[in-house]
Amino acid sequence: MPHKRGNVRERTFANGKLRVMVMGGLEEVGRNMTMFEYDKEIIIIDMGLQFPEEDMPGIDYIIPNITYLEDKKDWIKGVIITHGHMDHIGAIPHLVPSLNNPPMFMGKLTAGLVKKLAEKYHRQIHLDIAEVNESTKLQLGRNFQVEFFRVNHSIPDGFAVIVRTPVGTVIHTGDFKIDYTPVNDQPADINRIALLGATGVLMLMSDSTDSTHPGYQVSESYIGDEMNKLFDKIDGRIIIGTFASQISRVQKILELAEKHGRKVSLQGRTMNDNVEVAHQIGYLKFNPSILVEDKDLGRYPDNKLIILGTGAQGESSAFLSRVVNKEHRTIELKKGDTVIFSSSVIPGNERTIQNLKDMVVRQGAKVIHYQMMDVHAGGHAKQEDLKLMMRLIKPEYFMPIEGNHYLLQAHADLARGVGIAEEKIYVADNGQVVEFTKGADGKTHGQLTKEKVPADYVMVDGLGVGDVSNIVLRDRRVMAEDGMIVIITTIDNATGEPIGNPDIISRGFVYMKEHKELIEKTRMKVKKIVKEHDPRIPADDDYIKNKIRNDIGQFLFSQTKRRPMVLPVVIKV
Amino acid sequence: MPHKRGNVRERTFANGKLRVMVMGGLEEVGRNMTMFEYDKEIIIIDMGLQFPEEDMPGIDYIIPNITYLEDKKDWIKGVIITHGHMDHIGAIPHLVPSLNNPPMFMGKLTAGLVKKLAEKYHRQIHLDIAEVNESTKLQLGRNFQVEFFRVNHSIPDGFAVIVRTPVGTVIHTGDFKIDYTPVNDQPADINRIALLGATGVLMLMSDSTDSTHPGYQVSESYIGDEMNKLFDKIDGRIIIGTFASQISRVQKILELAEKHGRKVSLQGRTMNDNVEVAHQIGYLKFNPSILVEDKDLGRYPDNKLIILGTGAQGESSAFLSRVVNKEHRTIELKKGDTVIFSSSVIPGNERTIQNLKDMVVRQGAKVIHYQMMDVHAGGHAKQEDLKLMMRLIKPEYFMPIEGNHYLLQAHADLARGVGIAEEKIYVADNGQVVEFTKGADGKTHGQLTKEKVPADYVMVDGLGVGDVSNIVLRDRRVMAEDGMIVIITTIDNATGEPIGNPDIISRGFVYMKEHKELIEKTRMKVKKIVKEHDPRIPADDDYIKNKIRNDIGQFLFSQTKRRPMVLPVVIKV
Repeated sequence: MPHKRGNVRERTFANGKLRVMVMGGLEEVGRNMTMFEYDKEIIIIDMGLQFPEEDMPGIDYIIPNITYLEDKKDWIKGVIITHGHMDHIGAIPHLVPSLNNPPMFMGKLTAGLVKKLAEKYHRQIHLDIAEVNESTKLQLGRNFQVEFFRVNHSIPDGFAVIVRTPVGTVIHTGDFKIDYTPVNDQPADINRIALLGATGVLMLMSDSTDSTHPGYQVSESYIGDEMNKLFDKIDGRIIIGTFASQISRVQKILELAEKHGRKVSLQGRTMNDNVEVAHQIGYLKFNPSILVEDKDLGRYPDNKLIILGTGAQGESSAFLSRVVNKEHRTIELKKGDTVIFSSSVIPGNERTIQNLKDMVVRQGAKVIHYQMMDVHAGGHAKQEDLKLMMRLIKPEYFMPIEGNHYLLQAHADLARGVGIAEEKIYVADNGQVVEFTKGADGKTHGQLTKEKVPADYVMVDGLGVGDVSNIVLRDRRVMAEDGMIVIITTIDNATGEPIGNPDIISRGFVYMKEHKELIEKTRMKVKKIVKEHDPRIPADDDYIKNKIRNDIGQFLFSQTKRRPMVLPVVIKV
Repeated sequence: MPHKRGNVRERTFANGKLRVMVMGGLEEVGRNMTMFEYDKEIIIIDMGLQFPEEDMPGIDYIIPNITYLEDKKDWIKGVIITHGHMDHIGAIPHLVPSLNNPPMFMGKLTAGLVKKLAEKYHRQIHLDIAEVNESTKLQLGRNFQVEFFRVNHSIPDGFAVIVRTPVGTVIHTGDFKIDYTPVNDQPADINRIALLGATGVLMLMSDSTDSTHPGYQVSESYIGDEMNKLFDKIDGRIIIGTFASQISRVQKILELAEKHGRKVSLQGRTMNDNVEVAHQIGYLKFNPSILVEDKDLGRYPDNKLIILGTGAQGESSAFLSRVVNKEHRTIELKKGDTVIFSSSVIPGNERTIQNLKDMVVRQGAKVIHYQMMDVHAGGHAKQEDLKLMMRLIKPEYFMPIEGNHYLLQAHADLARGVGIAEEKIYVADNGQVVEFTKGADGKTHGQLTKEKVPADYVMVDGLGVGDVSNIVLRDRRVMAEDGMIVIITTIDNATGEPIGNPDIISRGFVYMKEHKELIEKTRMKVKKIVKEHDPRIPADDDYIKNKIRNDIGQFLFSQTKRRPMVLPVVIKV
């Protein structure tokens, strides 16, 4: 029996406003989090993390901003998670404790993955998780009733969320594709979706990831067929790099291993964790005897082995990188191996992956970057699927989510195409508030307001959360570009005259041993600046520092066309 | 009449070795340069630059290593340039003066572009350039005769090079595709290539850029047709971002402008330079009255304008970025504009381009990233084209060039497929020497030797060439990741005791104002380290410095999980 909190009948129709705020994923990809607020009650959908942009050196990841919730923690009636990917669950260990551990609701597999994630986190976290499925009905607070319908994705147990509020029903798809023949998952419930549409839906919030891709997404079972053909042709070991979170792909590989009489070695901690979780709760079906331990790898001939690990994106600490760089404790590449890259390339990783392939080939192994799988079988609905969802739901309002602005606009174009009124399509920014109120006529009116709740980046770097400011990042970028130079001058407190020669330390600018002349000239210039300084006001460090910063900065640029960060230090004795 | 140096008949058959060395583009993409050496004579094909990898912060570009040529400058009998792209001409201003200005040979358009490039360079360069075409025969030194045949590419006037040597004929394709209906260029001379093959070719060196792409490359004229259809549908201004070097694309756009009754505004210095050069010498054909100056843009209605500029890769200083960031002096985006990204995405630029598109859409303009153009119409031969080239040339030996190792191996696979003997396919590294010698039987024998001439990176950063060492780069990376902290302690020369409190400066590590406690703790730790130091050996700065570096480094990591660069400075007074 599904979990219930309160009773669906008990709802009160406060004559208030529904406020909908998407906190991430509208201006970039990742850190998904959506808030619904009505009459001092809030529910949240997803708490994901985002991987840093290129201009954020040293940052580990970015989490949603919860400033808005600071003084509203007791309003939170529940947190709902659509599926178990990091961009939807990754911020849970950071945010849930700060929000007084509100009750959480998610599918069974998602629950398993979230618990595993929390275990790995450095401090103990108490999570109040209830499992849900397609027949669950939740009453959250007085104003929200929540139900679910199944969607497909590259991980099983993905749910879209139906949020019934006093002013109407909002549907949030989460990440989805429509797959009539998914692998080890149930197909998206088209029939239920259609019935929902027939009862009248106020707003649809839908996944925009593939909104610029024409046509339909390919079924995961088709990928399996293609991989099967591939396996037929391979004689040696098969080494596969994929995402640990692509549970459906892992299932298919385990099935093919069985079929081709190969044993499977699982590599990488996340891969082992995820397989363990998914297997325990029945979302991965395989005979455990098909798995082989590292120490027993030598007992099987090469053509009886599949090694399945993480790292198809070239992540430096993942299994595939370690093997290729000969840093893996037991596995080494050899002639006859075939390495299959089984995941699409995340933008920005192209060069790293190219280097990885180079190194695989250099060690005599073959590379298959299966193009069909790459291009055609992601986890997201394409244009025709997106239109199908809109046609089935028939929402009055439409809000594209999960994609940067360009993708949201492309999705909005599709919405116009299926006849949703231009003024009822809301392409919002992170944190921008959408409001719905019931008018005197009893009808609900929507508005994309100009109000924005704080939604800027919260960057996690080591133990620091949100403490890396733009200034710190700017300094990192400047030093990465042309390095820095520290100039230390000692000054006689009484006379203002320099004592000895200035010390100069530089890093990342020029190799000092090869630029003695430049360094010597710089030293002389600094000395001159200090000497020329009016001795009547010997205490004015700031003046000297500024002059050193400016004059030496210009001098070094004229000599090298580089702009290192100049850091003057004045010591008075 | 083509240029001639000496006479073809005069050649002497020294019983020596032909050495072939590819100096760049075998382990990465770019800085193309190939050397042929025979009996103290050398000819060079191409002198390109390479754009820096992600782990080379601050580096402008990389040029070929010419250490090997240091004491052989007088051996150089000629430098041949295949076509006018930067990865084939970009290093000329750097290298040619250092090599005593050897005679250079190239097509007319290439010559124009090289001269323009040299003009832009900061010092005066004398170039000895002779123009060549498909009927040119060059005698270079005693041992090399060079001829050319036409190939197609995304710039006109591309030539493959036929190098006749005492031990046989080597053909170097340069960058090529085979286009039977090119735009404003002559088609690759298939017939001539076949005749060459019939006379016996020792080795083919061929472009591997698209060696993993199945099928045939699409003709540039097809792209024109597709763009024509696009133009038909657009009402407002058309703003196109492309590479300034894609002269064929520019030609097509100028033709379409004529056809659609639109004026063209050229934007960006390189775009204007290239169009000027190509037009002057007849490689771009258009009526100059079609061009419009910035000041006259206002005189034409939006649907009569095309604005054509650089920056489809999101380069921050290029036209498109400046318009989008509202930094352009005359042009601003507005509703009704259509921005066409007309170039394929260079790996690594995906996110930047995505951001650019976002900003275009935010300003109310439409984006068209023409997928067909993107994916299907590059300037390089695909698998079937590459096989055609091999079938026509019928070389005894084959050496894939211009592509990283993975692409070279893929190209080698194709060569095996068309029947070239496994042991006569040379997949080499940068600088690795291939040798050919005539045996007693009068036959030529090849060998991929283990000898490598210096071919490592020569990095250009500002005015510095090759002065950025790995140490400098490593420092830049460390500081980019977690910043740095300078710790300055003043010590009494006589007693070894610290004077006052240590000064601490940090950049890119933590925002100091928000971490006063951490900074204070660090200060106390430093003071303690100095105090605990044995006063009997007060002069041992290195010991103190090392202890500060290690202890403070560990302390900061334990507190923050970050590893800033720690720079201790000891001042003695």
